[in-house]
Amino acid sequence: MEHQFVEWLSRHVKPLPRGAIGIGDDAAVLPWPAASDVVITTDAISDHVDFELDATDPQLVGRKALAVNLSDLAAMASRPIAALVSLVLPRQGGAGLDCYHLAVELYRGILALAERHNVAIAGGDTNTCDGPLVVSITALGQPAPGGPLTRRGAQPGDCVLVTGRLGGSILGRHLRFEPRVNEALRLRERYELHAGMDVSDGLALDASRLAAASGCGVALRLDAIPISADAEQLARQSHKSPLEHALGDGEDFELLVAAPPDAAQQIVRDQPIDPPVTIIGHCVADAGLWQTDQRGELRPLAPTGYQH
Amino acid sequence: MEHQFVEWLSRHVKPLPRGAIGIGDDAAVLPWPAASDVVITTDAISDHVDFELDATDPQLVGRKALAVNLSDLAAMASRPIAALVSLVLPRQGGAGLDCYHLAVELYRGILALAERHNVAIAGGDTNTCDGPLVVSITALGQPAPGGPLTRRGAQPGDCVLVTGRLGGSILGRHLRFEPRVNEALRLRERYELHAGMDVSDGLALDASRLAAASGCGVALRLDAIPISADAEQLARQSHKSPLEHALGDGEDFELLVAAPPDAAQQIVRDQPIDPPVTIIGHCVADAGLWQTDQRGELRPLAPTGYQH
Repeated sequence: MEHQFVEWLSRHVKPLPRGAIGIGDDAAVLPWPAASDVVITTDAISDHVDFELDATDPQLVGRKALAVNLSDLAAMASRPIAALVSLVLPRQGGAGLDCYHLAVELYRGILALAERHNVAIAGGDTNTCDGPLVVSITALGQPAPGGPLTRRGAQPGDCVLVTGRLGGSILGRHLRFEPRVNEALRLRERYELHAGMDVSDGLALDASRLAAASGCGVALRLDAIPISADAEQLARQSHKSPLEHALGDGEDFELLVAAPPDAAQQIVRDQPIDPPVTIIGHCVADAGLWQTDQRGELRPLAPTGYQH
Repeated sequence: MEHQFVEWLSRHVKPLPRGAIGIGDDAAVLPWPAASDVVITTDAISDHVDFELDATDPQLVGRKALAVNLSDLAAMASRPIAALVSLVLPRQGGAGLDCYHLAVELYRGILALAERHNVAIAGGDTNTCDGPLVVSITALGQPAPGGPLTRRGAQPGDCVLVTGRLGGSILGRHLRFEPRVNEALRLRERYELHAGMDVSDGLALDASRLAAASGCGVALRLDAIPISADAEQLARQSHKSPLEHALGDGEDFELLVAAPPDAAQQIVRDQPIDPPVTIIGHCVADAGLWQTDQRGELRPLAPTGYQH
């Protein structure tokens, strides 16, 4: 199976740039531009935790495995360059496919998204075992000219912004979301940003993490939080409000950014990227997560979200 | 569990070099020297396939997961710099430990080997699922001054050399082998080498792969192959000879190298590294794997080994 699969792969993976060595040797070799850091992240997704293989197009599973990694690079304002894919396939296959065809479908989803974002698939490892499907991807990138954006660096007085609309991604968006790679690079290039991350475990939880990493607090204006149509729909069948979904649901994969007020207001006026960018709060000196109203009073806010 | 574990990790992982960003952000950032390629590899090991968790010290499992990746970098004559670790833990734990303590023990094994080889643990991802333990590691390195060593480049007339003694690693060496990192760098630095790889799936199979990648053949002198004491011991209970074990057993993780005859003979005279280096054959124009005797006659040899 591995031999047959590597053959399929070598016909479908795009050739690497000149001077690079890809699939087929013990390791991949990537020429790296001088004076550029390596930004690198790894994320694994597995059946029954991050997707339900028997109810999901395997191409979407492969796509998601790469997308979550590209989202992590976007969070660091870095341009993805290459990825390595490690598949642990259930011996009996899955989604109605044998092992070989399952691997091929997973890769079709990976390769399509890789192509959209100009990411080279530089290597991988394919194994079978008696267990659920695990797709583990490592993605490498180069920071935007302004340098990598990190979670630390937010300052009291900064505005907190988010891209897109939040909540209810479980209805399907968690498989189809577009990692905010180009959006992050554009924002980093054009505006002064102090800190950033992607919203992967829920806005409230992730905002509290941004605050903690920066040594300050974050106060959210709950009436300003952009709520997705999915959150509205989900609220009709759950016991939660749309706002609770927007605050606590995982897997939005939007960008959460702290920027000085001038830059933040300029971003909101310009709307320089396709998803809307919204100011949803500001950073405060008191550590922790807060909610604030129009009068500016702070009350504690629970950091709801997905705890691994 | 993840929170508690990340805390343990942040206390036990060595700080990264100046300018680097490690665990705790969306991605790691590694300063990279100018004009140096990125050599990168990924390899996953899983319970019941690459180890038996309930019969193995989890520190050795973690160690092996890193060691197989370092061996791949050694195969490319590259110096390991950093690694990222992705754990998929069985929800109920394993090896008599709960999930948290299993993760800690795995990491103890990883960190000890990382320290020996000066490898920074730059990031990771830890998940639980209903399935067997999977440890997936990605390792990054920088090529030796002579550039990365690849599988292609062997030429008819080259000698084929191997480090150490082969076969029977299933008796325990597959968990405790020393990746030949420093050995590969030293050989690359001091001698002219044409091609190289690590012996991971069996000498015969891997030699046939080196031959195929180089567009030539490899002829092995069976009486020259260094046989490990493990292979002798295993042969007493198997239906195979020690030589068959040395040719076909997987997971030796020794270096297989092609070098011009002058360089090869110099290596064997110098014995510049701790494990013995032995000339075990030579490259020939006719594609495929061959055995040869003292009279130089070629007969086909089966590429036995571990097919994934």
